[in-house]
Amino acid sequence: MKDPASPLRETDDDARKLARVILRSARHAANADLDPETGFPFASRVLVATDIDGAPAILVSKLSAHTRALARDPRASLLTGEPGKGDPLAFPRLTTQCLAEPVERSSAFYERIRTRFLARHTKAKLYIDFPDFLFFRLKPQQASLNGGFGRAYQFDGNDLIIQSAANEAIATEAEETVRDLVERHPDVAEALAIRLKAPESGPWRICGIDSSGFDMISSDLLLRYEFETLAVDTDHICSNMTKIAYSIP
Amino acid sequence: MKDPASPLRETDDDARKLARVILRSARHAANADLDPETGFPFASRVLVATDIDGAPAILVSKLSAHTRALARDPRASLLTGEPGKGDPLAFPRLTTQCLAEPVERSSAFYERIRTRFLARHTKAKLYIDFPDFLFFRLKPQQASLNGGFGRAYQFDGNDLIIQSAANEAIATEAEETVRDLVERHPDVAEALAIRLKAPESGPWRICGIDSSGFDMISSDLLLRYEFETLAVDTDHICSNMTKIAYSIP
Repeated sequence: MKDPASPLRETDDDARKLARVILRSARHAANADLDPETGFPFASRVLVATDIDGAPAILVSKLSAHTRALARDPRASLLTGEPGKGDPLAFPRLTTQCLAEPVERSSAFYERIRTRFLARHTKAKLYIDFPDFLFFRLKPQQASLNGGFGRAYQFDGNDLIIQSAANEAIATEAEETVRDLVERHPDVAEALAIRLKAPESGPWRICGIDSSGFDMISSDLLLRYEFETLAVDTDHICSNMTKIAYSIP
Repeated sequence: MKDPASPLRETDDDARKLARVILRSARHAANADLDPETGFPFASRVLVATDIDGAPAILVSKLSAHTRALARDPRASLLTGEPGKGDPLAFPRLTTQCLAEPVERSSAFYERIRTRFLARHTKAKLYIDFPDFLFFRLKPQQASLNGGFGRAYQFDGNDLIIQSAANEAIATEAEETVRDLVERHPDVAEALAIRLKAPESGPWRICGIDSSGFDMISSDLLLRYEFETLAVDTDHICSNMTKIAYSIP
């Protein structure tokens, strides 16, 4: 039973899905850390991608306020979900409280995060390998979705993590899988965009796949699609995607 | 002398002006507080206006996470400056660390803030007077401007406050002053918009004046203009505005 005075609603699967889509379709976010000198919260803008398990990853300069703050205290929050035209509060947004882990270049998942980040932020190739840039992986602890007036939900951090034994294998095969898919179906990204009623910007490009869905990008637009159930391997992901793209509606 | 390894530049008047324009032209912001239960920073979206002295003011529900957090610890930060098309990090943004003061309805500046807020956020009239909504005035303590790669500046909170003995008098006369100005020059807002190279959206409306400049709004766009020097009274503000609108370039 919820407190009747609480504006929180019972968290259901629709709310969980909306939260995942908001987090995974964000190109940038407001990242808030704890200022090590003053103890004030410090919010600033970061580019964001997701790791293969859906955890957000940010790329920051070692000289930035973020890095100094997160090196001292790993507690961070990420605000995702950009407003469109009209009342900014009418658009859903998600606050994810996370613990930040620096991703060393020697780390097993550095290459994976770098590849996924670059697929989404191609211009970051100009500086991603500078010695003073590093990734933080942000492990969700809890999250709050504000879906508009009177529509607030809370989540456990695990609701935003893709709990799949296939994550590692999918990460290894992802680039080749997308390349093969596009070779077999050169129009697959456009067909997906049409089926998902994406804005007519184009051309669209698939910029990430995982057990839980796929990401597509077209200049400033990032589109996230979540499958109904987790895919067990890359073949399963491809068959899901071609079904969406080419099945008779 | 700055630390040569620091990415900070010497703060100059251009940087101060850019910071003021970013803060005062924000319709919404990411507001980060300290979560009283977990100590995590908590960033979420708020509508923002400015008080007559340039201090930001936010309107929030008493049931919101902000209110619970700020009632316990007044330390907050506000991220303003929205990105446009292209690389989100190429657009300047400002982080203002503030101390939040609740504005009671009995407070001397409640009406002033309410009037200025409504002029900017007309749709808020639907809920602004609900008993569970309240304003916080956010007193800037320090601020960081990120003007794009390699262009970082720091400010004292007072750099963002309008230090003018005329503030109170201007606040009292502001609504009538704008009404009279528009009566005398029905096209003044459009003339200002043209002179300030505003995007051709229109129609434009003057939604705030103060010693340091004026605000204009057109649907989702908020335009802030800063005078070269502080105006001493409302006549001075009007003469500045008509000069900008109608002088031969």
